[in-house]
Amino acid sequence: MNNILNPLIETIDKAIKAHQWGEEPKELYEPIGYIMSLGGKRLRPLLTLLGYRLFNDDIRPAIAPAMAVETFHNFTLVHDDIMDKAPLRRGKETVHTKWNDNIAILSGDVMMIKVYDHLLELDPEILPAALKAFNANATEVCEGQQKDMNFESRDDVTAEEYLDMIRQKTAVLLGLALQLGAMVAKAPEEIQSGLYDFAVKLGIGFQLKDDLLDVYGDQAKFGKQVGGDIIENKKTYLLIKAKELASGELAAELEKWIAHENPIAEDKVKAVTEIYNQLDIKNITEQLMQSSFEEAFGILESMPLNEQQKTYLSDFATIVINREK
Amino acid sequence: MNNILNPLIETIDKAIKAHQWGEEPKELYEPIGYIMSLGGKRLRPLLTLLGYRLFNDDIRPAIAPAMAVETFHNFTLVHDDIMDKAPLRRGKETVHTKWNDNIAILSGDVMMIKVYDHLLELDPEILPAALKAFNANATEVCEGQQKDMNFESRDDVTAEEYLDMIRQKTAVLLGLALQLGAMVAKAPEEIQSGLYDFAVKLGIGFQLKDDLLDVYGDQAKFGKQVGGDIIENKKTYLLIKAKELASGELAAELEKWIAHENPIAEDKVKAVTEIYNQLDIKNITEQLMQSSFEEAFGILESMPLNEQQKTYLSDFATIVINREK
Repeated sequence: MNNILNPLIETIDKAIKAHQWGEEPKELYEPIGYIMSLGGKRLRPLLTLLGYRLFNDDIRPAIAPAMAVETFHNFTLVHDDIMDKAPLRRGKETVHTKWNDNIAILSGDVMMIKVYDHLLELDPEILPAALKAFNANATEVCEGQQKDMNFESRDDVTAEEYLDMIRQKTAVLLGLALQLGAMVAKAPEEIQSGLYDFAVKLGIGFQLKDDLLDVYGDQAKFGKQVGGDIIENKKTYLLIKAKELASGELAAELEKWIAHENPIAEDKVKAVTEIYNQLDIKNITEQLMQSSFEEAFGILESMPLNEQQKTYLSDFATIVINREK
Repeated sequence: MNNILNPLIETIDKAIKAHQWGEEPKELYEPIGYIMSLGGKRLRPLLTLLGYRLFNDDIRPAIAPAMAVETFHNFTLVHDDIMDKAPLRRGKETVHTKWNDNIAILSGDVMMIKVYDHLLELDPEILPAALKAFNANATEVCEGQQKDMNFESRDDVTAEEYLDMIRQKTAVLLGLALQLGAMVAKAPEEIQSGLYDFAVKLGIGFQLKDDLLDVYGDQAKFGKQVGGDIIENKKTYLLIKAKELASGELAAELEKWIAHENPIAEDKVKAVTEIYNQLDIKNITEQLMQSSFEEAFGILESMPLNEQQKTYLSDFATIVINREK
């Protein structure tokens, strides 16, 4: 692999480490430094730098929009973790656990303003288009989060609705991240839009992989509790598809575990995984994931990019496809 | 009074009424329509229209930034009401009460994005400067809110700290609102900055008046529970000053009421008001409020504006000064 990605990730990590979020009151700014330093895969800012790097070697003008995208992503994590009452994020305490809900709400709000501070560093010539694209996608991320919450109290969520939800909640931000880099490099709109579509398809595959890893992942590598989604009856693609395909006794058993008010976690994970296995859910989900990745590669192939550019993008796709955590 | 303010308020009300915030999911957008329709004095968007109207009769280009300012203000109300666990806002249920905390967090987040959508309608030539001013002041509003929360668990808050907090939490948004209108009208920077200072001084007086009305307001006009701040031991200017000035028995009695875990509300309000009266707190606060208003008028007088422009601005100041709710 002709690896340009590692130096780009280093660039992001360095920029995040060097950034001063603010001083006083410290209750407002310490949580921002904390969540931004927890790491994660940095896939979104990497996409922004990559989208720029395809067209220009000197990536400095892409650092601010990459910071905007990563700050926005972390803002959504801070607020989503309050809504989900999640105690841990990347193995560490969430902001609302380490501080409290109010501080998490308000420092998240400040992060949102800081997103636009980063975008303000863009060339004024592209600022309106960049903001327009950013706002449209940021709105979709919120819509996706609301739909995800609505799904919790529904038991008739269809696979189609689920795929639309993850497109909004997860995939479009990957699309925007890559598009933004290309936009800053002043790539033609047609290319920008192709890159957006490419990364959105990758993002859908990325989330399906996440659903799979939560059930079939290697606990030693995964980081989160394998089986966590099953324990919480989280409406992932796997559960939705299992409910759609199960009938007779199997359907009754699945419903029994879903309705069980106080199950032994280990038993529930084992039993539901067994139901998934009988219904071939792993294979069905992998096929859908695979076809989303193939659609991404199809878009990439059809784009008027040179081989070098395509290699960079497929190197990125490989990271997403091979993730085990 | 040569009243141009009423038609400007009508313009805002019409713009808010006509605005489509979004459709689906409805849990995300209904709360936005709800909070924006609750009314309130619309002082901030009025300031934006006024700041533009000083220089230009056709106020249409100022409607979008006025919407931005009012949307931001209402966003802060939605999130602050969660933090304060407030059941009512303008006599109606708060968003987190009518729906729930999660919906209030997330629909607030979308409002924040919509603020920037409104700002995006500005002439690209002034967009960077407008965003920069907006972000700086929006950040201060959040800092002020965090300081206000920090004050709750402190009993050594000084009058100086309090005045700095209300400047950030309340006054700077009035400053920004007026400045933004003038900016859109492409008024000279010196004028913009004078208008900002004028409205900030008004804003500090406005908040001191709010503190006074909470104790000495006419219940029939005030809308909120008179004495609410006393019941909650809210660190207003009145309480901070009373703690500073009280000594001996009076100080002990004030501390007793503050420490009382389950007082009869009516008794506490009566007793603490009596302590304020003995310390001449009403007068002291009114003098500070008055001097803030006078500073505002001093700034206005010194600005290179014509008599008509000054009249418009002092008409606005009169609304703030005469508020009884």
